[in-house]
Amino acid sequence: MMEIIKGGVTSAKGFKAACTAAGIKYKGRTDMAMVVSEIPAVCAGTFTSNVVKAACVKWDMDIVKSDRKMSAVVVNSGIANACTGEEGYNACRETAKAVKEALGIDENTVAVASTGVIGMQLPVDKLVNGVKDMATKLSDSEEAGTDASKAIMTTDTVNKERAVSFSLNGKVVTLGGMSKGSGMIHPNMCTMLGFLCTDANVTKEVLQKILSDVVKDTFNMITVDGDTSTNDTLLIMANGLAGNDLIAGPGEGYDKLYEAVYTVCESLAKTMASDGEGATKLFEAQVVNAKSKEDAKTMARAVVGSNLSKAAIYGCDANFGRFLCAMGYSGAQFNEEDVELYFKSANGELKVFDHGVPLAFDEEKATDIMKADTVTVFINMNEGDASATAWGCDLTYDYVKINADYRS
Amino acid sequence: MMEIIKGGVTSAKGFKAACTAAGIKYKGRTDMAMVVSEIPAVCAGTFTSNVVKAACVKWDMDIVKSDRKMSAVVVNSGIANACTGEEGYNACRETAKAVKEALGIDENTVAVASTGVIGMQLPVDKLVNGVKDMATKLSDSEEAGTDASKAIMTTDTVNKERAVSFSLNGKVVTLGGMSKGSGMIHPNMCTMLGFLCTDANVTKEVLQKILSDVVKDTFNMITVDGDTSTNDTLLIMANGLAGNDLIAGPGEGYDKLYEAVYTVCESLAKTMASDGEGATKLFEAQVVNAKSKEDAKTMARAVVGSNLSKAAIYGCDANFGRFLCAMGYSGAQFNEEDVELYFKSANGELKVFDHGVPLAFDEEKATDIMKADTVTVFINMNEGDASATAWGCDLTYDYVKINADYRS
Repeated sequence: MMEIIKGGVTSAKGFKAACTAAGIKYKGRTDMAMVVSEIPAVCAGTFTSNVVKAACVKWDMDIVKSDRKMSAVVVNSGIANACTGEEGYNACRETAKAVKEALGIDENTVAVASTGVIGMQLPVDKLVNGVKDMATKLSDSEEAGTDASKAIMTTDTVNKERAVSFSLNGKVVTLGGMSKGSGMIHPNMCTMLGFLCTDANVTKEVLQKILSDVVKDTFNMITVDGDTSTNDTLLIMANGLAGNDLIAGPGEGYDKLYEAVYTVCESLAKTMASDGEGATKLFEAQVVNAKSKEDAKTMARAVVGSNLSKAAIYGCDANFGRFLCAMGYSGAQFNEEDVELYFKSANGELKVFDHGVPLAFDEEKATDIMKADTVTVFINMNEGDASATAWGCDLTYDYVKINADYRS
Repeated sequence: MMEIIKGGVTSAKGFKAACTAAGIKYKGRTDMAMVVSEIPAVCAGTFTSNVVKAACVKWDMDIVKSDRKMSAVVVNSGIANACTGEEGYNACRETAKAVKEALGIDENTVAVASTGVIGMQLPVDKLVNGVKDMATKLSDSEEAGTDASKAIMTTDTVNKERAVSFSLNGKVVTLGGMSKGSGMIHPNMCTMLGFLCTDANVTKEVLQKILSDVVKDTFNMITVDGDTSTNDTLLIMANGLAGNDLIAGPGEGYDKLYEAVYTVCESLAKTMASDGEGATKLFEAQVVNAKSKEDAKTMARAVVGSNLSKAAIYGCDANFGRFLCAMGYSGAQFNEEDVELYFKSANGELKVFDHGVPLAFDEEKATDIMKADTVTVFINMNEGDASATAWGCDLTYDYVKINADYRS
């Protein structure tokens, strides 16, 4: 049985974390975090699809694509280190070298991640001092993991961590993770970063396959503003210290690890969506009985991605035509005559559109349903048997405020 | 020589317009307009690419695809008549029939267009009464055209009309038009509607080709919020009353008519972009020296379409990394090391990014440039010889306000 436990990146055996206030952008708060595995870990990763990739993304892709293991990740939440040319890539190297000097770890197994303003150079001296400080503070306590998850926040209003454990071949396997930001396909500017640590014993190939598959249905199904960052990074380290039999292909171990990764990623993804910049609500679109999985995903994402849908969700305005409109321009093909549409939340449910015809409905009831913290638009396509869910948030005055003058 | 003249849909010979307050949604203002050609006109049109098409779009597509001519267009600005099933299509037929009864025009040559809330039925009695009233008021005065352009507004803050004339074979040919809304590919909810009237003598094939080509570089290059409406419609009627030799293929007549259509459409498109919901500025992206026209268009549209770019333009924040980020996820391929980026406006110009490296720049000067009514982001790709320009607007608190409770 999968068990959800309290914790994050330090929950699995052999992982330590630390953070520090390096003064890169913020004053009076932590802005660097480090996660270290006692022994080099098998690693996998997924990265932004943006043509413009931050220096640190290039650095990490190099590690993940090689047959090297990963021993540590260093994150800063002040400057994105994107569009920074050779000087930016050197900043990654200097950070990794600082970890080598402080901890004796091979610099080529140290990943780095950044989030913040694009087009500014990182102050390398502050990064190096930060690493030195964190090296003296590493701890496997739950608190150290939580503090790390707070240090990587930018415009996030809550820190995001989650952990699960399950048993395999009589051994307890644990997986914990933290993330910041609001998306993978469509993150907000401040970038989606995610770091997962597990003590599972697993091959690199299986780890990468599980991560890549899970991302498609979790992080890639959330959207805040349609802007795909230059820095999006999701990394997983598996150090094998749980002592389970090696997971090298299909079977019980594969299924359980998949479920663990899925559970943590879905939870982190939903938390990120509901904490989208300026958001007051989690906005969920469930598309069922579509012709294909791809169509279902495309439509669900279009609904939660539409500014007009999001503004209506914010205003508790049951303007369902906007959802149909978004489905219509998403690229998926369908007949509006087949479609049924409902609003659902903890406050009830209401059908508003039935096979091509708008229904007369109680506006007060609709408003009441939409006042909940999580609002679901449930769409039955009646054309097949494929389903998908996407998560987003409402569009508010605060989103504009946060982004109209982000740099100051 | 092309001459820009004062006027709109009534500028060309043989076109009359009228409007009325039919009480469909708004109180105390006009909400229906009608444009009639003295004699049946050759027609062409372009329509929304949304899978969900409003009943009136289906009705008009049927006319444009047939070999029928077009004699009149009836527009209402209260209810979109989309997602309304058979009842919605009947509303189109009843409107056309009312025109037949009032003016003796074949109902199958009467186009209808709607903009407003999706998923509500139109009150047919109000439409019919509106048509009756307008039939008694038709006038070819400039004022009648202007009043019509006001009656089709929804959240628009200014009416939009433009006219040009040129001489051909010793005859004066005139083209005038009006539009409302904010886009064709990415219009705001209230739909982009455009109506062009010319007295040119031209074949249907040439008219459609010119319209389709012009739309690609004008209306399709503006964006307000990325939401493609169910109702977008651009129609042109050419009644031949100028008496020029028939324009049936390439040549002087073709070129002059193309220029006239282009001039009116570009002007209407830019006015729509700068009048985007809640907008305070026209936001222009010029991409030059790209590898292909398609790439240039894709990147220019991504830049003006990004919420983060738009919020930065609103805040006069020279956060140029957001533009590079948008170009990066647009789908176009390029090397950031080739790119130069400038801010330009009536207040000056400033280079901020040079071949992959961010430049130190004067923030005050940047803010001053960005305070202008029109702000241009000028991007030199240095990779080819293709160029494109896209137009949008800034993202403001008022956009959210307008759309959070649009229906009330």
